[in-house]
Amino acid sequence: MSDLSGVRALVFDVFGTVVDWRTSLINDFTVWSERRGIQGDWTALVDRWRGLYSGSMDEVRRHPERGYVILDVLHRTSLERLISELGIAGLTEADLDYLTRGWHRLHPWPDSVAGLTRLKRKYIISPLSNGNVALLTNMAKFAGLPWDLVLSAELFAHYKPDREVYLGAARLLGLAPAEVMMVAAHNSDLKAASGLGLKTAFVARPTEYGPLQKIDFEATGDWDIVAPDFGGIADKLGC
Amino acid sequence: MSDLSGVRALVFDVFGTVVDWRTSLINDFTVWSERRGIQGDWTALVDRWRGLYSGSMDEVRRHPERGYVILDVLHRTSLERLISELGIAGLTEADLDYLTRGWHRLHPWPDSVAGLTRLKRKYIISPLSNGNVALLTNMAKFAGLPWDLVLSAELFAHYKPDREVYLGAARLLGLAPAEVMMVAAHNSDLKAASGLGLKTAFVARPTEYGPLQKIDFEATGDWDIVAPDFGGIADKLGC
Repeated sequence: MSDLSGVRALVFDVFGTVVDWRTSLINDFTVWSERRGIQGDWTALVDRWRGLYSGSMDEVRRHPERGYVILDVLHRTSLERLISELGIAGLTEADLDYLTRGWHRLHPWPDSVAGLTRLKRKYIISPLSNGNVALLTNMAKFAGLPWDLVLSAELFAHYKPDREVYLGAARLLGLAPAEVMMVAAHNSDLKAASGLGLKTAFVARPTEYGPLQKIDFEATGDWDIVAPDFGGIADKLGC
Repeated sequence: MSDLSGVRALVFDVFGTVVDWRTSLINDFTVWSERRGIQGDWTALVDRWRGLYSGSMDEVRRHPERGYVILDVLHRTSLERLISELGIAGLTEADLDYLTRGWHRLHPWPDSVAGLTRLKRKYIISPLSNGNVALLTNMAKFAGLPWDLVLSAELFAHYKPDREVYLGAARLLGLAPAEVMMVAAHNSDLKAASGLGLKTAFVARPTEYGPLQKIDFEATGDWDIVAPDFGGIADKLGC
């Protein structure tokens, strides 16, 4: 482990790293649809919705002339396409809003809240997510995530892995990149952060994508910390 | 009291409203200077430092071509002028940094933390201050302020009472202005917020400026809530 005594803040990827978006959304929509009397393959919807995530952010990158578009809006656009493709019928405007805001109602992994609470004693802790500020704020209230502040790609009008997000977070915190540690379950996120001088911590979340998971079963880079969960990160940092 | 059932978030002015900057800084600098062996009139420094605050933000407004300058930098610039004017000698670079970061080490009024904790149960709570993000984040850690997120003038590259700050806060929260309540001990802050459609709550902090206090002993506008302290706001909002 490299010298981490200069680290002052830990910033966290959220979807998959802090919260289990897939199980949360499938369960939420299944319960809701039974009460609401709507038929649909909610597992297929959720998996395909996440499948459109990366491409929807690429569209924003490709069209700077349109201005930055927050993730809530990208989610809504993708949802409208998918309900058509999946033949889900009878959804009102309020239903579409409910489903889109499902991304604000995600449950943490079992170790997340306890681990964050330990880390918060010694470090500034914040999300650093592609979710917009309102999404991350509402999720924190819902899931009991004890953030000190909420840093979002939205604040920099760029999506990860664009450099503006990582460097912007350090700038707002008044810290050098090496004083900030990125925590993620995704090697690609850590590779981008590391390349800009941030410290890195990896936790495996091998069930994030359910049976569709193909990568990120383990660390594939020389990260500063590799731990089984947030409690393991706290152990290694002496919290 | 007007209908406040639509309010979802409370945003707080910080200097004077949440924390007692004057007593905090005078005490901090007095203790520090005795240990450090530096002579100075710390009460005069603090009062004159705050006296330069408004003008230093006006300079930023007058020179948009220079770009936005965060409050930490304005504080440092004003400090250098004042130590010269007050004849305080022997300060090193580390001392100037320590004094400037005094604004990160402010103590809350006696009712602040308990009141915020009650309000947080029902509402999103955030600062909406001219302090920069790092200043507000460090202060929250120091003072135990239980913010859900940290909204700062810095995020909008404008200082209050510019409209961009109030409307930017509502936008980031994904809320309409009327769903956001501004809490302040300064009538001018509430006047700006109210004019843009935000709800308003006033608390008097009659000792903020010590013997120099001339205004804001009481509410001078038709604010939605007027209370003696944060507990009183929580009472009126049924928290």
